Amino acid sequence: MTPTMLSNLPSRVRVVEVGGRDGLQNEAHVLPTDAKIDFLERLGAAGLQTIEVGSFVRPDRIPQLTDTAEVFKRLTKRPGVRYVALVPNGKGLERALETGVRDIAIFTAASDTFNRKNINMSVEESIAAQRPVVERAKREGLWVRGYVSTCFGCPYEGKVAPERVRDVCVTLQDMGVDEISLGDTIGVATPRQVETVVGLLLERVPVGMLALHLHDTRGTALANVLAGLGTGISIYDSSAGGLGGCPYAPGASGNLSTEDLLYMLDGMGIETGVSIDKVVQASRYISAALGRDLPSRYLQAASR
Amino acid sequence: MTPTMLSNLPSRVRVVEVGGRDGLQNEAHVLPTDAKIDFLERLGAAGLQTIEVGSFVRPDRIPQLTDTAEVFKRLTKRPGVRYVALVPNGKGLERALETGVRDIAIFTAASDTFNRKNINMSVEESIAAQRPVVERAKREGLWVRGYVSTCFGCPYEGKVAPERVRDVCVTLQDMGVDEISLGDTIGVATPRQVETVVGLLLERVPVGMLALHLHDTRGTALANVLAGLGTGISIYDSSAGGLGGCPYAPGASGNLSTEDLLYMLDGMGIETGVSIDKVVQASRYISAALGRDLPSRYLQAASR
Repeated sequence: MTPTMLSNLPSRVRVVEVGGRDGLQNEAHVLPTDAKIDFLERLGAAGLQTIEVGSFVRPDRIPQLTDTAEVFKRLTKRPGVRYVALVPNGKGLERALETGVRDIAIFTAASDTFNRKNINMSVEESIAAQRPVVERAKREGLWVRGYVSTCFGCPYEGKVAPERVRDVCVTLQDMGVDEISLGDTIGVATPRQVETVVGLLLERVPVGMLALHLHDTRGTALANVLAGLGTGISIYDSSAGGLGGCPYAPGASGNLSTEDLLYMLDGMGIETGVSIDKVVQASRYISAALGRDLPSRYLQAASR
Repeated sequence: MTPTMLSNLPSRVRVVEVGGRDGLQNEAHVLPTDAKIDFLERLGAAGLQTIEVGSFVRPDRIPQLTDTAEVFKRLTKRPGVRYVALVPNGKGLERALETGVRDIAIFTAASDTFNRKNINMSVEESIAAQRPVVERAKREGLWVRGYVSTCFGCPYEGKVAPERVRDVCVTLQDMGVDEISLGDTIGVATPRQVETVVGLLLERVPVGMLALHLHDTRGTALANVLAGLGTGISIYDSSAGGLGGCPYAPGASGNLSTEDLLYMLDGMGIETGVSIDKVVQASRYISAALGRDLPSRYLQAASR
């Protein structure tokens, strides 16, 4: 008998680098604009094709990201790379459009309590609020990514029904969203759950639209990537160095680190077009700028 | 389409707790005998069925484990649990027998350079030296586990040929070893490599004899467990809290942590008979005794 469980996985993966937005947003330290630009340019030089650059939220809400317009404008952009900005509402979209952003992300959740605590709306209310935003964005020819938080568990409600995740995703698809990122916001997912949730989704949503946004809070992120590859998903979110882990708990892990993801994919012969060494250099740069060690296992091993 | 990659995995896993030997051996701190006994009894209370208790090596080689005989004798043993001691040679076996040990482990490697640096013998020399040890142990009715280090990569030689791993394992099997633990000593394995190496082994060695001993150095340990489950392997080594990571690098990871392993297996509905909460308690106890935080992701998340 020769085991063959892993013989039929995608041969190529697109890595979505979220360190510049989801990562920095969850760091205690507010970085200078120049450091952000330098970091994002290093990520581009590493070969990443989709890079989050910031967020057009109200400046008083997320002080780490008040300079997104300046970051985007001054950033040297590489052809073929999507530089994605988060927009929370119509006002954010207008600012994104004024800035020349062509790729945006909107967000909602699969759990009402989480969504209410996060943005003071039910899931349905937040989707209704974003419908005109997506419609206008599509009229302007923008590419739109939709984040769905808490797809695998909610910090307040606990379990989240896979049917609920499916219904939210189908609604986003019907609204015209181009790509849907399924978030394991609190890092509770396990591999069979990934298979179950994605399996149900694939009855309604094409696999090419789906991304997984995994957190390594309990060490399961890469096992969940493997399960995701088994479902055919070929888009994975990660942050350089694991940026965006709990800033007040040294070594604590949030976002799956780009290096850990690349190490596994490289070892499995799955192409990404991204240089792990150059991501390590970007992580070391941002780690020094933040003045803290980052939780990526690979980065830590490479630094010993 | 419903993904089914993970539908045919073992329904039950035996976790081999190596914190008391492999873990403590790689910690800088030397613990009092009472603390070791307390720790091991807590691990037994958690439901672990195979527990490493120490090593009968020369006391001047590993100061952390000079009191293994006393630990073993004074330990309150649970029926049905294997309390395993490492024996490096015939002298070690005699001390194990005098102490009343019934379950031993021997060790070799799949890489000559590693084995020479570790015990100053080639792989063939170490196997030849252990042949009479295993023969005597089997005559005495002992259960014998064989560790094979560097099955997925060597810190000196780099790549290790799967055929080399197979040949070493077949020799150990022919010698009468009951269980073979395949070590990813430096934590470089990736999932398809696990599948390849184990796949080759399964042509010659029954799956029930094989265990995986994975390190989380680059974050891939649980993904490799998942690949191992796909090959049918149902025995996994781990250490409470991830004990035994590089003691001089805070947060650095060596052994796969028992909590991280249990969290994933529990979430997948794979039975172990082990209480994750009780393992966390044991880890907190030993963490306090060592005076350092342990690298387990789950333990860190549970402690926030």
